[in-house]
Amino acid sequence: MHNDRLSLDVIARHVDAKAGDYCALSDRIWAVPELAFEEYRAVVEQIAMLEREGFRITPKVGGMATAFVAEWGSGGPVVGILGEFDALPDLAQVSGLAEHKPTVTGAPGHGCGHNLLGAGSALAAVALKDALEAEGIAGTVRYYGCPAEESGSGKTFMARAGLFDDLAAAFCWHPSVVNEVQTTSSLACIQAYFRFRGRAAHAAAAPHVGRSALDAVELMNVGVNYMREHMPSDARVHYAITNTGGDAPNVVQAYAESLYLVRSPHLPDAERLFERVKKIAEGAALMTETSVSVQITDATSNVVPNKALQEAMYENMRRLGPPAFDESDVAFAEKLQKSAMTEEEILASVKPHDLSLKTKVLHDGVLAMPAREEVMMGTTDVGDVSWIVPTVQCHTACFAIGTPFHTWQLVTQGNLPAAHKAMAATAADVLRNPDLVARAKVELRERTGGRAYRCPIPDDVTPDDLRAKAA
Amino acid sequence: MHNDRLSLDVIARHVDAKAGDYCALSDRIWAVPELAFEEYRAVVEQIAMLEREGFRITPKVGGMATAFVAEWGSGGPVVGILGEFDALPDLAQVSGLAEHKPTVTGAPGHGCGHNLLGAGSALAAVALKDALEAEGIAGTVRYYGCPAEESGSGKTFMARAGLFDDLAAAFCWHPSVVNEVQTTSSLACIQAYFRFRGRAAHAAAAPHVGRSALDAVELMNVGVNYMREHMPSDARVHYAITNTGGDAPNVVQAYAESLYLVRSPHLPDAERLFERVKKIAEGAALMTETSVSVQITDATSNVVPNKALQEAMYENMRRLGPPAFDESDVAFAEKLQKSAMTEEEILASVKPHDLSLKTKVLHDGVLAMPAREEVMMGTTDVGDVSWIVPTVQCHTACFAIGTPFHTWQLVTQGNLPAAHKAMAATAADVLRNPDLVARAKVELRERTGGRAYRCPIPDDVTPDDLRAKAA
Amino acid sequence: MHNDRLSLDVIARHVDAKAGDYCALSDRIWAVPELAFEEYRAVVEQIAMLEREGFRITPKVGGMATAFVAEWGSGGPVVGILGEFDALPDLAQVSGLAEHKPTVTGAPGHGCGHNLLGAGSALAAVALKDALEAEGIAGTVRYYGCPAEESGSGKTFMARAGLFDDLAAAFCWHPSVVNEVQTTSSLACIQAYFRFRGRAAHAAAAPHVGRSALDAVELMNVGVNYMREHMPSDARVHYAITNTGGDAPNVVQAYAESLYLVRSPHLPDAERLFERVKKIAEGAALMTETSVSVQITDATSNVVPNKALQEAMYENMRRLGPPAFDESDVAFAEKLQKSAMTEEEILASVKPHDLSLKTKVLHDGVLAMPAREEVMMGTTDVGDVSWIVPTVQCHTACFAIGTPFHTWQLVTQGNLPAAHKAMAATAADVLRNPDLVARAKVELRERTGGRAYRCPIPDDVTPDDLRAKAA
Amino acid sequence: MHNDRLSLDVIARHVDAKAGDYCALSDRIWAVPELAFEEYRAVVEQIAMLEREGFRITPKVGGMATAFVAEWGSGGPVVGILGEFDALPDLAQVSGLAEHKPTVTGAPGHGCGHNLLGAGSALAAVALKDALEAEGIAGTVRYYGCPAEESGSGKTFMARAGLFDDLAAAFCWHPSVVNEVQTTSSLACIQAYFRFRGRAAHAAAAPHVGRSALDAVELMNVGVNYMREHMPSDARVHYAITNTGGDAPNVVQAYAESLYLVRSPHLPDAERLFERVKKIAEGAALMTETSVSVQITDATSNVVPNKALQEAMYENMRRLGPPAFDESDVAFAEKLQKSAMTEEEILASVKPHDLSLKTKVLHDGVLAMPAREEVMMGTTDVGDVSWIVPTVQCHTACFAIGTPFHTWQLVTQGNLPAAHKAMAATAADVLRNPDLVARAKVELRERTGGRAYRCPIPDDVTPDDLRAKAA
Repeated sequence: MHNDRLSLDVIARHVDAKAGDYCALSDRIWAVPELAFEEYRAVVEQIAMLEREGFRITPKVGGMATAFVAEWGSGGPVVGILGEFDALPDLAQVSGLAEHKPTVTGAPGHGCGHNLLGAGSALAAVALKDALEAEGIAGTVRYYGCPAEESGSGKTFMARAGLFDDLAAAFCWHPSVVNEVQTTSSLACIQAYFRFRGRAAHAAAAPHVGRSALDAVELMNVGVNYMREHMPSDARVHYAITNTGGDAPNVVQAYAESLYLVRSPHLPDAERLFERVKKIAEGAALMTETSVSVQITDATSNVVPNKALQEAMYENMRRLGPPAFDESDVAFAEKLQKSAMTEEEILASVKPHDLSLKTKVLHDGVLAMPAREEVMMGTTDVGDVSWIVPTVQCHTACFAIGTPFHTWQLVTQGNLPAAHKAMAATAADVLRNPDLVARAKVELRERTGGRAYRCPIPDDVTPDDLRAKAA
Repeated sequence: MHNDRLSLDVIARHVDAKAGDYCALSDRIWAVPELAFEEYRAVVEQIAMLEREGFRITPKVGGMATAFVAEWGSGGPVVGILGEFDALPDLAQVSGLAEHKPTVTGAPGHGCGHNLLGAGSALAAVALKDALEAEGIAGTVRYYGCPAEESGSGKTFMARAGLFDDLAAAFCWHPSVVNEVQTTSSLACIQAYFRFRGRAAHAAAAPHVGRSALDAVELMNVGVNYMREHMPSDARVHYAITNTGGDAPNVVQAYAESLYLVRSPHLPDAERLFERVKKIAEGAALMTETSVSVQITDATSNVVPNKALQEAMYENMRRLGPPAFDESDVAFAEKLQKSAMTEEEILASVKPHDLSLKTKVLHDGVLAMPAREEVMMGTTDVGDVSWIVPTVQCHTACFAIGTPFHTWQLVTQGNLPAAHKAMAATAADVLRNPDLVARAKVELRERTGGRAYRCPIPDDVTPDDLRAKAA
Repeated sequence: MHNDRLSLDVIARHVDAKAGDYCALSDRIWAVPELAFEEYRAVVEQIAMLEREGFRITPKVGGMATAFVAEWGSGGPVVGILGEFDALPDLAQVSGLAEHKPTVTGAPGHGCGHNLLGAGSALAAVALKDALEAEGIAGTVRYYGCPAEESGSGKTFMARAGLFDDLAAAFCWHPSVVNEVQTTSSLACIQAYFRFRGRAAHAAAAPHVGRSALDAVELMNVGVNYMREHMPSDARVHYAITNTGGDAPNVVQAYAESLYLVRSPHLPDAERLFERVKKIAEGAALMTETSVSVQITDATSNVVPNKALQEAMYENMRRLGPPAFDESDVAFAEKLQKSAMTEEEILASVKPHDLSLKTKVLHDGVLAMPAREEVMMGTTDVGDVSWIVPTVQCHTACFAIGTPFHTWQLVTQGNLPAAHKAMAATAADVLRNPDLVARAKVELRERTGGRAYRCPIPDDVTPDDLRAKAA
Repeated sequence: MHNDRLSLDVIARHVDAKAGDYCALSDRIWAVPELAFEEYRAVVEQIAMLEREGFRITPKVGGMATAFVAEWGSGGPVVGILGEFDALPDLAQVSGLAEHKPTVTGAPGHGCGHNLLGAGSALAAVALKDALEAEGIAGTVRYYGCPAEESGSGKTFMARAGLFDDLAAAFCWHPSVVNEVQTTSSLACIQAYFRFRGRAAHAAAAPHVGRSALDAVELMNVGVNYMREHMPSDARVHYAITNTGGDAPNVVQAYAESLYLVRSPHLPDAERLFERVKKIAEGAALMTETSVSVQITDATSNVVPNKALQEAMYENMRRLGPPAFDESDVAFAEKLQKSAMTEEEILASVKPHDLSLKTKVLHDGVLAMPAREEVMMGTTDVGDVSWIVPTVQCHTACFAIGTPFHTWQLVTQGNLPAAHKAMAATAADVLRNPDLVARAKVELRERTGGRAYRCPIPDDVTPDDLRAKAA
């Protein structure tokens, strides 16, 4: 029993009506880029607009000053739309320029397009509410203001606080170089500091008195590199040395520290692997007569794909077609490709999709759904949401093909496409099609093997711990 | 044929006459501590006082803005007296306080007593000149203003410039916790950066594309630790990792760097060992498909002890006796020992000398010369001077027994002792006793096996390279 | 234009006619197990039977005493059938016993079923010849006696000698626990010794004089373990230390050696990876001041699957149905499963196929062709044949489900199944269906990208080198 | 109060009287070389001769079949004379030949001159007894038949059994290339196996299932090599890998093992260092999820030198002069030096003594006692005796200068010198000079700091364990 009053056309019309306002919001967020957990301005702007639309605001959720929930309506299924709005360090860039020129050297910039992401998601929520209101249909639309995706896992803390528990489905999108439904899962991830403490000594006069924490860091790394042979091929472990114990070779290093990321397509595997990494750290401490402490500072679950929602969203995207680009869009994209992208970057940009795209500058189609589900070798805190509620995500072409993420080349491109219509339309599908939700929930249960969501971040780790570390 | 007009008593009298002025100079240098190669104020102060005494000044020698030579007299043997005056980072401390309290947090401080060292040496030079002048004896007294002993090897650059070549003998002293002639040699040393360059990549999505410079740094360290089994027991190799390629574990590190110190009792052995370390670095680069560049930034020769001069100096010290301390000196030293030194530090302070000292607070004797020559497991740029000209050094009790070097406990003690009389007196011995010089030179030739001095710093490394690195 | 005179029924009838003789041959080969390159008796037995059937014998091909070719007929397409017959060390076992009991302790045994493999393949060749002869059809049937599959890569040397160049298609089978067409490719492989030479010394009295070859072996391993992070996930590198330089810790080890296997789904990738491993070895030699020499002793290409032939073979297998087992077969398999296989082994045995098999003892169906082509994480010298000529392979259920390969559990099971009929029938398909060959050859060209076969074993490595090594 | 009836002349006369018999004994032992713990024939021969002289025999002491004590006399101080008689593997050599020619390939040989050592010591004991008997002086002479010096530490087990507890002093000698009193101490030593157990797996198909014991062995070695920087310079740690887990790279190694020697000038330091090595092994096990077991198989104490006895022995050696060589001795030594020794070996042979010896072929003097006590960087089980009772050892020139130990060059030289007279004479000194014993005992107490001897071999390790291992 479908409800045609929430058809694709209806939704698209409501999106178009307010697209200008949210383009302007995106531009304002782009202009004042804020780092993870410091998105104060972006939050104020969004809350103001959503309040004006009649949304009820719950600020500072999940223990985070820049996380909020905006809700409209009552009764019916609750649909969630997720927004992100944090920027990246050292990526400030003059807009619309085909060469690298920071506005302020060293300042942050929107290198992952989260200005678009947040504004577009908010627009989807508002358009859906407008349609429900206009048609007098019961339903609840909830917009989640999710901070710190780039570093800090805002959604994971929100998941821990139970904020997604009553959703029928969750929707998100990400600006991209192509139009497609995301079908990949992602890697679950655990991030932790390993801190070694030894005893200083004069490295020439009394080295036998010293116990080197730097030795421990190095031996841990050696141990982990030996473990690689004996871990699953699709897992990932990598590290940075974040404190070497000082620049003076003539002092035995009494303190040293490394930061590890442990990832696997399944969270339990990542956790098992992390236990092995901890044993290696303890082994390195034993070997060097130092002590080690471990602090998990971040963790995210893998994305659980939902074929039912993906197919619904793909149908909407296919019918909507790709966002329209005008001549100047194409001209700038061409100029940028020529002056600022390598052949290799262009190839890397399209490889997972379709090699025929490599001669294009802007994607003008919608990619078909692949036959086989792959694992994206990366991590997102959308994963935690997807364990709790059927979740789907689309990508929309916003950037020239070949644009590498987290670069000035991306920052310089700032237009808001219309394709998040698909997100609102699929959310509408959820409202008018109870069967879709039912199927999506069955699928989720099957894929998680019925295991309830368990937040991978230890209970005693708070967002403040992360901020302290970042400081 | 001795010249009694330069007897110990005569010299001691001339030292006493101007001790007050040079105490004041020491206090002024203590109050404005300047780091290596930045000792501008200390140099201005010293030059002013020496010019007033009739010394001829050659500023900015050896390519260093804060190195200078001050010379008086003509004819006769040329005796050299070496002064140092650089401070250490982050050791600012209120004077005369038995607890840690920086004047300015993070500011430099005289943690090695070089304020005393420079002023005392200058006083010795002036007193010797006064004696020669008063007695109408021919002779040349040269004071060397030597910058950057703590880091930078000022004397090594001065040696490379040939500034010590015409000396009959060189003299230096160092403030200490005991009175003694230094009989130990020291370790020759080579310091170098190993810089590895690889290729960045996303550590989860495309790790096989990356070539990790951090891996190379770690593998070099592993290789060096394997080499330890197969190098002479009295050599030393130690390192710091000075650049880890960033704090982000999810990026393969494209650049990383370590700083190595390679030391051995004999410079040729240190050089041979350094060649092996370089091979290990090249091996690590091969292993990781990265490239490596090596930059020597500092090097010093081992000290060649000179028994003839040591015996002459010991005789003078023995006859002069220890510097006198008054009741308040003893009281403050006692307070400091109690509040700010551990049993272990006190033991370490006297161990090489005489365990009976451990119940003392201030040394009130002169240590006998040891039967056997030992190697001090440390490095000094006096080594380079000692390869060119017979060189001798004394230690004088200036600090409470148990005071660790390079600490606030040392900075807080600022009195100028009289014992550098020994230095001036032994310099006088050189002038009045040609046979002593002859014997000392024969000994130098024997000990170096007739090998001419070769500066261990490569020709293309200048003090500016060191400053650049330090910046 | 099909030739129905070579229909499946015709072929099957000819196979049945002589099955008893070749069962007896298989039993004789089982009873006298011979190691790689030493299969003298097995070769004599096969040649005798094939000569009796009118095959022309070329003995000692490819420089190997136990490799031979047996050919019958003339004109028409040439079809090749590959036989193997080497045993494995230390697997002697009393036949038909459900517990471990060696016939002779330490003696070889047929732990991979190659007694069946060779005899069954020879039977297929003879039955095909019988059919051609009976029907008066032109065609050439060639049986390849391929030694040293387990260790030594006999087929690779035969490929280097050009012995497969004029084939229309090649066929092989392998005894297994299931009935299926093999669709997987395999890993290309390079095997090499790394031999390090240093300098001995007394490890306590003069360790600095020694240069440890064992250190070099260890550092090479460390380097390789670091490389794992930066190589493709589907490649494999593993090693054994084959000489540690002696059991005396008090001597610095002057010689040491390791044996590496480098594998990848594509030979060029394996070769690239092997070059990196060689660099690591050179790096380890540099680090330790030892020298290294590398000797490739074996190499095989990856299998190029051929869908056209696979489908033809699958159709024959499907129509033939599984080989028949009688009650005593089932009873013994049950007994063996209970007494000598773990739950885990049974699961591992069926995992790639179908979990529903895990409750069976003997496979009584034919597995469907999988939708997706996988890579078998192992190596076979059939790979080299498959680069030259379209090649297909089937598996036939000969052993109880759960039987691990290379164990006494497999040796103890010795019955000859009828299912290699499929091999003969598909070879017949090749003869009567020119279009199949044409399609298979086009597919081969496409899959190899038109690259001609290049033997991965260096020209100067001969089978004798391998035998020398093994001795 | 000296007893002149036991003067040097008296003793020398008694030695000369029976020298021929014991030369013949030495030759017989040389002709039938027996390995450690298997010296059955040598023991039978010695016991027979000593019984004939009236010695009381206690066979199979300390739990060893080839250890015995032979005692004569009663009352007075008990003097102990230590004999060794084990050979070395693979050193069989035709006697008196200047080129390498084994009697039997692979058979043992007396590469350390223990045939001379045992026979000469027995002669000393007998001559001393003859003198006591002839002069009617009370005293007890005890000859210790000590097996397994080369490998197994026979004396350490005898020390554990309390067999040396009632001695006044112990005496030994060793055939050498020079005549001298040994003044060096030696390294205490602990030898142990580290055995790691993991889990096998196919290295290509399921490496993540395997847990590599070989990885653990390698990581332990890496850890130890890192520790080297932080252990005392005069300690020694070295290892052999005694089991690599097999020669097949395609199997994850489930078992691997290494043999470590840990040495230090002082036993407690060696024990502390060994504890650190054990921690490293545990760390390696943790890192690899394997288990480790440690088995100490041997341990010896450092030698405690005894100046009082050394001086007494030196006086005797000086007065006796060097053993006489005749023209044919010199001629053979010259021939051997020329044909079978390198310049380097000759230098190494004399370096610790006197470079002037390097132009000699046979030592014709007695080396003076060195001013300073050095540590010999090696190990002997005489160390354990020296902790219990004042012990002294002399070296006597028996071999051409330049002869390396443990080689055929040494085996080929088989003459018995007269210089063990010094040993008997010094033992006589002990009997006639109570004061010497008193002073020697005081010195022992001082040097051991009053610590009672504690056997370094764990109580549960028996000589049988060592034999089992060696088998």
